[in-house]
Amino acid sequence: MTEKTTGVRRRGRRPGGTDTREALVNAAREVFIELGYDGATVRAIAARAGVDAAMVNHWFGGKEGLFGEAVLKLPFNPQEIVEILIAAPADDVGQTIVRTFLTRWDATGGGVFTALIRSVASHEEAASMLRDFFFKHVFKLVIGKFAPDDNDFRATLIATQLVGLGMIRYVARFEPLASADIDRIAAAIAPTLQRYVTGEIT
Amino acid sequence: MTEKTTGVRRRGRRPGGTDTREALVNAAREVFIELGYDGATVRAIAARAGVDAAMVNHWFGGKEGLFGEAVLKLPFNPQEIVEILIAAPADDVGQTIVRTFLTRWDATGGGVFTALIRSVASHEEAASMLRDFFFKHVFKLVIGKFAPDDNDFRATLIATQLVGLGMIRYVARFEPLASADIDRIAAAIAPTLQRYVTGEIT
Repeated sequence: MTEKTTGVRRRGRRPGGTDTREALVNAAREVFIELGYDGATVRAIAARAGVDAAMVNHWFGGKEGLFGEAVLKLPFNPQEIVEILIAAPADDVGQTIVRTFLTRWDATGGGVFTALIRSVASHEEAASMLRDFFFKHVFKLVIGKFAPDDNDFRATLIATQLVGLGMIRYVARFEPLASADIDRIAAAIAPTLQRYVTGEIT
Repeated sequence: MTEKTTGVRRRGRRPGGTDTREALVNAAREVFIELGYDGATVRAIAARAGVDAAMVNHWFGGKEGLFGEAVLKLPFNPQEIVEILIAAPADDVGQTIVRTFLTRWDATGGGVFTALIRSVASHEEAASMLRDFFFKHVFKLVIGKFAPDDNDFRATLIATQLVGLGMIRYVARFEPLASADIDRIAAAIAPTLQRYVTGEIT
């Protein structure tokens, strides 16, 4: 974040250290904005950063992880979240979603979630990249495993509850929810998410 | 919105026409931001606008309505929404909330909701005024009538689902929810709201 990508590029290829990681984050931010999520290839990003494409897998586990870190500035790797969710028992997936969401975002202190929302509310392309990314690489995998039908509609219902939970807890900070412990919130919200994934929605 | 408040003030008191209404909106925006929702009095706002305090009731039905229009720029009068909700049968309040929310915001086309979210995500004081306003003048009245216990926590749960619904339908515009008809969304989300108001949340 402290060096300009142009400056980085001039220095050419370099070993797989933390400067490579940072160069990839800077290059990815530019290329995702220029080409969108689907248009941006690992090869193009690596070329822009002046590093080998294998470094993307080495540092971020692939394009999804790099996007999550460079553009969404997520405080966790989305791939890891998908693995946690698809490992949950089918009748416990609502609990797993809300607890994973709160544990990860609570750890960042809320400012990162606020920055994400501000970016989505201010930039059409941020909203569109977030949508493409979450649908193809998070919701589809999780819903695809558990939901009986209407997968895309179910995915958007889950998004309404999670985004709203983040808005009220981290952005608007309405009490008592903003300070409530995770057990209390999970008890109230897990049944909603469970129904959106596996239950009756018509 | 087209004249500066200072210019308005110089012209002194005037009859109860639409320029009075506009002067009140401009003055209210300033005074609410300076003094917060609780600190701003009808008398202070009317004085700033150079009109009689009775004009606030005449045009906005009171301080709540003026706040809703001047600061939140709501496309409806919150007082009217409260009346609709408290008139609902107890076992139908979830349906009434989600249908009223969607009907009113759909009518504005979504841009107004996006502006509200952007304001809440960018200005600490907007979030704090929104919270004070909605809690004291909307949620408390509705929840107070229907909920068996834990009123404040229930109010924040309702806020999570409604704010998230607005975010996904109007701001991020995730499909198929963004284009889904109101009946389909109400069928999925009304049971969530009904449980948050009157059901089991622990």
